[in-house]
Amino acid sequence: MSKLRVESFTLSIDGFGAGPNQDINNPLGVGGTSLHGWALSTRTFQKYLFGNDGGATGMDEDFAARGFQNIGAWILGRNMFGPVRGPWPDESWRGWWGDNPVYHVPVFVLTNHPRPPLVMDGGTTFYFVTEGAAVALARAQDAAAGKDVRVGGGVNVIQQYLRQRLINEMHIAISPVLLGSGERLFEEVNLPALGYGCTRHEATPLATHLIFTRQ
Amino acid sequence: MSKLRVESFTLSIDGFGAGPNQDINNPLGVGGTSLHGWALSTRTFQKYLFGNDGGATGMDEDFAARGFQNIGAWILGRNMFGPVRGPWPDESWRGWWGDNPVYHVPVFVLTNHPRPPLVMDGGTTFYFVTEGAAVALARAQDAAAGKDVRVGGGVNVIQQYLRQRLINEMHIAISPVLLGSGERLFEEVNLPALGYGCTRHEATPLATHLIFTRQ
Repeated sequence: MSKLRVESFTLSIDGFGAGPNQDINNPLGVGGTSLHGWALSTRTFQKYLFGNDGGATGMDEDFAARGFQNIGAWILGRNMFGPVRGPWPDESWRGWWGDNPVYHVPVFVLTNHPRPPLVMDGGTTFYFVTEGAAVALARAQDAAAGKDVRVGGGVNVIQQYLRQRLINEMHIAISPVLLGSGERLFEEVNLPALGYGCTRHEATPLATHLIFTRQ
Repeated sequence: MSKLRVESFTLSIDGFGAGPNQDINNPLGVGGTSLHGWALSTRTFQKYLFGNDGGATGMDEDFAARGFQNIGAWILGRNMFGPVRGPWPDESWRGWWGDNPVYHVPVFVLTNHPRPPLVMDGGTTFYFVTEGAAVALARAQDAAAGKDVRVGGGVNVIQQYLRQRLINEMHIAISPVLLGSGERLFEEVNLPALGYGCTRHEATPLATHLIFTRQ
């Protein structure tokens, strides 16, 4: 059974999934990059983001790696895809990740503004979905052909799927970082009331890892 | 130099310092007791709360123990003192802790409703302060005679002192528990903007311990 999963989504201690004022120089908002200290050194992130061999192993790596296992499609909010707001002025913005993005599978980008699919190197195609979260999920599950679908974020997109109880499993990392403001994942989302519980809790020197499962 | 400290204040993963609907059967709000799993088994809490010898040692105990070291006075919000709301109907409510409370020093209770001091066994006297947080702090520091003052909570009281940048050091434990609703410590409190940073981060199987220090 194909699952809808959140993986390696990182929050600050004060609950923010991204810093404020995202722009082209701050894809994760101001201060947002500091969130991802636990992940950046791992073997998985070194390989996927930078094409490097090597990198840290251990618990952080285990969590980073599981996020790429058995994933057949991704769903991203439009702000994760890029800093452009409103209608696409042209087709020059092709994501944060260069010609060969980290995904290597179909990626469904939620947006209010239509745009033709964008075929990248390495197996990634970005599809722009204007019909909302439910349609994006149906298309992603279809494309995943039995594998799982990973919701990359951001906060607003994860919240939409949580409120519909559509997420089966969610891995959240809490980094020992304060952002002060930004978008709160747990704002107006009552996880216990939605049937979610914390089913695993592991800590490393760089982060606290939590798994939430829908009961 | 006498410090104002928060110690062993525990939050849920979703950021709540207490559960909703506090009443006489739920001093920490519904579900709030589950927050304190890391603390209840420690040697310090066994001794202070239950008068038992023994209890767990290790990192959780180290954090629990430091919360009682060099403390000359406490400040509590009225809701931490008890479930009574509005004017005191009589003097029958004497706190949650029996005749010999855990404090053993003067305790200043912030309230809008005056009441004479309440002398308990074992060195604890509850003083009811109606002149606000600044006056409570001045009186507590005076009573502490050079030792530190500990702010016990709740959320609202800690926030008042944080916003005034009066807290020098704050130990927060995050338990792997979801509460879903309640009072959020980090709501409308921008710690980095107030000059606070996370200066220590330790994790145990039961909690993530964080120390915040004002810079």
